[in-house]
Amino acid sequence: MISAKIITIGDEILIGQIVDTNSTFISKQLINIGIEVSEILSISDEKESILNALNNSLNKFDIVITTGGLGPTNDDITKEVFCEFFNDKLVHNQDLLLHIENLFKKFANNPINDLNRAQSLVPSQSKLIENKFGTAAGMAMKKGNTLFISLPGVPYEMKSMITSSVVPLLSKEFKCPVILKKTLMTYGVGESTIAKQLKVFEEKLAANFKLAYLPNLGRVRLRISCKGSDRQQLENQLDLYISELYNILGKIIIGFESVNSIESEIGKILAKSNKTLSTAESFTGGLISSRISSVPGASAYFKGSVVAYDTLVKKDLLKLDASLINHYSVVSSQVANEMANNVKKLLNSDYAISTTGNAGPSKGDSKKDVGLLYISIATPNEIKSYEFNFGNNREKNIKKSVNKALELLFNELLNEL
Amino acid sequence: MISAKIITIGDEILIGQIVDTNSTFISKQLINIGIEVSEILSISDEKESILNALNNSLNKFDIVITTGGLGPTNDDITKEVFCEFFNDKLVHNQDLLLHIENLFKKFANNPINDLNRAQSLVPSQSKLIENKFGTAAGMAMKKGNTLFISLPGVPYEMKSMITSSVVPLLSKEFKCPVILKKTLMTYGVGESTIAKQLKVFEEKLAANFKLAYLPNLGRVRLRISCKGSDRQQLENQLDLYISELYNILGKIIIGFESVNSIESEIGKILAKSNKTLSTAESFTGGLISSRISSVPGASAYFKGSVVAYDTLVKKDLLKLDASLINHYSVVSSQVANEMANNVKKLLNSDYAISTTGNAGPSKGDSKKDVGLLYISIATPNEIKSYEFNFGNNREKNIKKSVNKALELLFNELLNEL
Repeated sequence: MISAKIITIGDEILIGQIVDTNSTFISKQLINIGIEVSEILSISDEKESILNALNNSLNKFDIVITTGGLGPTNDDITKEVFCEFFNDKLVHNQDLLLHIENLFKKFANNPINDLNRAQSLVPSQSKLIENKFGTAAGMAMKKGNTLFISLPGVPYEMKSMITSSVVPLLSKEFKCPVILKKTLMTYGVGESTIAKQLKVFEEKLAANFKLAYLPNLGRVRLRISCKGSDRQQLENQLDLYISELYNILGKIIIGFESVNSIESEIGKILAKSNKTLSTAESFTGGLISSRISSVPGASAYFKGSVVAYDTLVKKDLLKLDASLINHYSVVSSQVANEMANNVKKLLNSDYAISTTGNAGPSKGDSKKDVGLLYISIATPNEIKSYEFNFGNNREKNIKKSVNKALELLFNELLNEL
Repeated sequence: MISAKIITIGDEILIGQIVDTNSTFISKQLINIGIEVSEILSISDEKESILNALNNSLNKFDIVITTGGLGPTNDDITKEVFCEFFNDKLVHNQDLLLHIENLFKKFANNPINDLNRAQSLVPSQSKLIENKFGTAAGMAMKKGNTLFISLPGVPYEMKSMITSSVVPLLSKEFKCPVILKKTLMTYGVGESTIAKQLKVFEEKLAANFKLAYLPNLGRVRLRISCKGSDRQQLENQLDLYISELYNILGKIIIGFESVNSIESEIGKILAKSNKTLSTAESFTGGLISSRISSVPGASAYFKGSVVAYDTLVKKDLLKLDASLINHYSVVSSQVANEMANNVKKLLNSDYAISTTGNAGPSKGDSKKDVGLLYISIATPNEIKSYEFNFGNNREKNIKKSVNKALELLFNELLNEL
């Protein structure tokens, strides 16, 4: 087993000011190449904390990845602490200085200063990791049996460095086992009931396989993971277990939890089949549109959206029939259907999503219950509307509906294309 | 200093399947009562990992809070490991069983089984922590100088237990210092430039005060935190430092990082002055609209948005002049201005925001550089356009532009209303 530890440096996670999404990203990338993250540790940016964490990890993990503390200000001390830990000293790197100066010329609205220039100082033994999007270079250094990698904490800088440099580096450096996992989504039944049904299944599960139960908001996800050297053999065995689970649990399984985001899966299908999409959004306020357009290349299949927050906008811009609104209220399946139909025509797309509802906490232009929501999906051939009520928490209503709408469209696309 | 460590148990964080928002919540609650979280550790649900983590924390922290591993299934072993660590054994608790049976009667769609009943087994020396919303009780146990608290990992169960039981328990148990922090938002200037201006300020900062720089997407947050015993004295000193920062940095300070977001601040001003807003978005894809409409009550001032992703939609729906597009390209200040003007008219609003640009990674319907972005703000009296280039990272371009657009509007509103 190739084991890794992630250490995030900086008080902002410890005081709850930000959520640690960096570690989530790194873990996912590493497990894809067969490296298991055994520990994630968040510590403060005090010298002693960092030194302790490095010392405690030495020879216990094959890889240690730290994030944070590489900026130009006084509270950024990771490089200095690395020098102490590796008994090294900071030296000036001319290429790095040129890169920093270039970034400032191109993008900064303030002139470069000596603190920025000092970012070209790096530990003399370190192998640098290029940071295309920022001034803080990453570094890799080996001590004992452990490879230490230090990256900046700014998410988009770190992500690009992991993808383009760290993953290739580690894949070359380590002979990693194959790790596979699949997660099945189930609904409607509690984890203990599922566990009873899976008692025999669990008992005869091979030693290199592991089953985990992940309950959340009415769904239980079942994750089977496995490790080995022969990918084909692992895949076969995993598929056998999956079909066994389908046999035992049958109709409560919704399907696999997918690795890629649902919006990128939707994009792939649309692009491949040369179809286009538009949205007409009320209470989701453009969030469906922004999820769809967050995918690089979305302009090939995404036409746009009308966010009709105001009832008048629904009438004027989406050309909704006033009598329909008067008769059924804006929160109705009839209005949702007409929104989808009209935006599909207006923006000349093959598919359309629409949403209308009372997201809460108070009612809008409709007397319908808070929490009552409608989503419609228009396809080239038909239009379907769905009613939901997820309670009266606004944030939950919006986010859950966006996921639901994307899920509904995805299923339509799978059926039709 | 009263120090705490949070240990999350379970593979789902380590493999990147979920983001650890539990620790963020706990840290925030603890710092409010003067308890500092010095470390957050995520480990797997293997017996050895849990035992190691408990042993390594013993007598090093005043408080250790673990989350996870209290469910009814085979992969939940926290109680068993606690028994081994505390040299204790599991005993049946009748009150807990009644609570579990009650929950099943009220809410479950499947009957109770022996795995659920086994959740009433708890370490004999533990003080139980009530879980109103779930079947897994929390527990508190002391060893050496460390108080160990174990909570379930399901977020809404854990949160309610922290708020109604753990915080009161810890406030009673520990004499905690006062910890205060304030965060100022700045914009438009990089952290190194700010650091230069604050050199003297930092040097004479009192020893119990700490300044941190938190740069992200074009904004730098400056956090001053302090610790002491006299709340009033700390507050006074903190206010003095804040006014000093205002003196030094002046106009680049937007204000305090409120608990409130900039979109809710915008909403307050618009609602108070009875003005309305609409947006016309190209590369931001509806994200500005969704941020604005995420605020409860937004329907009072937000009309809606046209997300004109496709150039044809810009022409047809936003009624942009084709010759303008042909002459200047869709990525131009002229087009941005007309988008803002037209959506303001179309949706009959007082203010409007528009965006157009090449977010990358590849070019769209314009030959302009990847990264070239325009934001326009239309007010009742005038229209202003701003040009930016934040590089060629799509995610960064979109997020940074959304922040920028909201900021520009906010400043206009502050000036005008």
